[in-house]
Amino acid sequence: MTSLNKTYRIGVVLFPGFELLDVFGPLEMFGVLREEFEILLIGPAVGPVASAQGPSALAEASYAEAPPIDIVLVPGGIGTRQLVTDENFLRWLHAWSDLASFVVSVCTGSGVLAAAGLLDGYRATSNKRAFEWARAHGPGVTWVPEARWVEDRDRWTSSGVAAGIDMALALVAHLFGDDRATALADRVEYEWHRDATWDPYAAKNGLT
Amino acid sequence: MTSLNKTYRIGVVLFPGFELLDVFGPLEMFGVLREEFEILLIGPAVGPVASAQGPSALAEASYAEAPPIDIVLVPGGIGTRQLVTDENFLRWLHAWSDLASFVVSVCTGSGVLAAAGLLDGYRATSNKRAFEWARAHGPGVTWVPEARWVEDRDRWTSSGVAAGIDMALALVAHLFGDDRATALADRVEYEWHRDATWDPYAAKNGLT
Repeated sequence: MTSLNKTYRIGVVLFPGFELLDVFGPLEMFGVLREEFEILLIGPAVGPVASAQGPSALAEASYAEAPPIDIVLVPGGIGTRQLVTDENFLRWLHAWSDLASFVVSVCTGSGVLAAAGLLDGYRATSNKRAFEWARAHGPGVTWVPEARWVEDRDRWTSSGVAAGIDMALALVAHLFGDDRATALADRVEYEWHRDATWDPYAAKNGLT
Repeated sequence: MTSLNKTYRIGVVLFPGFELLDVFGPLEMFGVLREEFEILLIGPAVGPVASAQGPSALAEASYAEAPPIDIVLVPGGIGTRQLVTDENFLRWLHAWSDLASFVVSVCTGSGVLAAAGLLDGYRATSNKRAFEWARAHGPGVTWVPEARWVEDRDRWTSSGVAAGIDMALALVAHLFGDDRATALADRVEYEWHRDATWDPYAAKNGLT
């Protein structure tokens, strides 16, 4: 447990084609704890960023003007396929993440972290339907196919989409205690999978 | 099962202080099925609408200019407390919902539907921490305290926050078949609660 009093600033990296629940599942959890977490949405420019599902969220700062942050959160989504080819973006992400206490991804976001060199020497997981894609972007990463999420020091990566909610609750527990995370899950009527090794989707996608 | 080929237009009613996951949990599910569902976010005016948790989503049309829609979705959130006192809004919501095939709410959104007279003569549920608040706005409603969600003809209401995801999958199953909904849940690595009567949160909040 790192702190009971600190407010953590979370910077969420939006990009065209981000996956809605990858962003808003974790942000529901962090966002209910208004005293403990402060949320900042970052995008290519200030303004709307369209998700893979259609609806747009509002970026409050551009990548170029993103302030230092405690927790970087990179979602997945079809837009990651373009992001991993964008050297300027990857350089910015690496530099910005170097200042953070935690670098966190949901779903194929770990492929982006890997492409930026942020997972070299770390254990990590990813979406089970795009696992080989993520793996291809991180030869220096120890990929874990069967995991709801993987915590390795300051890098936390979750499996596909909904898994980000379970990881977010685990991060709340890590920072503020298990009771706090349990109360939060109950409050939003969410049945938290507390076990990071629970992962029926690995087998369903031929990864075990 | 209503149809295998139709595209359903979903109109989501945004308002200041909407709960993030009430909106984006269901929209993840509907939004992945791009051929089957078309999403439109409606707000007080075109432009950003701030959630209860901070982040803003972009309304693409104003209430006044909302086109006819197949499925109306009303989320909950702290902003509902003001909405139920806004007679102009409630009149608009009633008239707009009259044109829809399904009127659906998540969490305290059922309090808003009730205040608009849209649940009179229906069975319905709501958030378990604000159940009495919802009940107070619908004396003509048969409130069901213990339910993950309640389907009653064309009115579907879910319990708190995360329950909306389970209801959305049930609605997908209703419209496009159980296999489709199961494949969707697996794709987003979500463990679907298929049983509408599963509700540990009723007891935790003294409602049983």
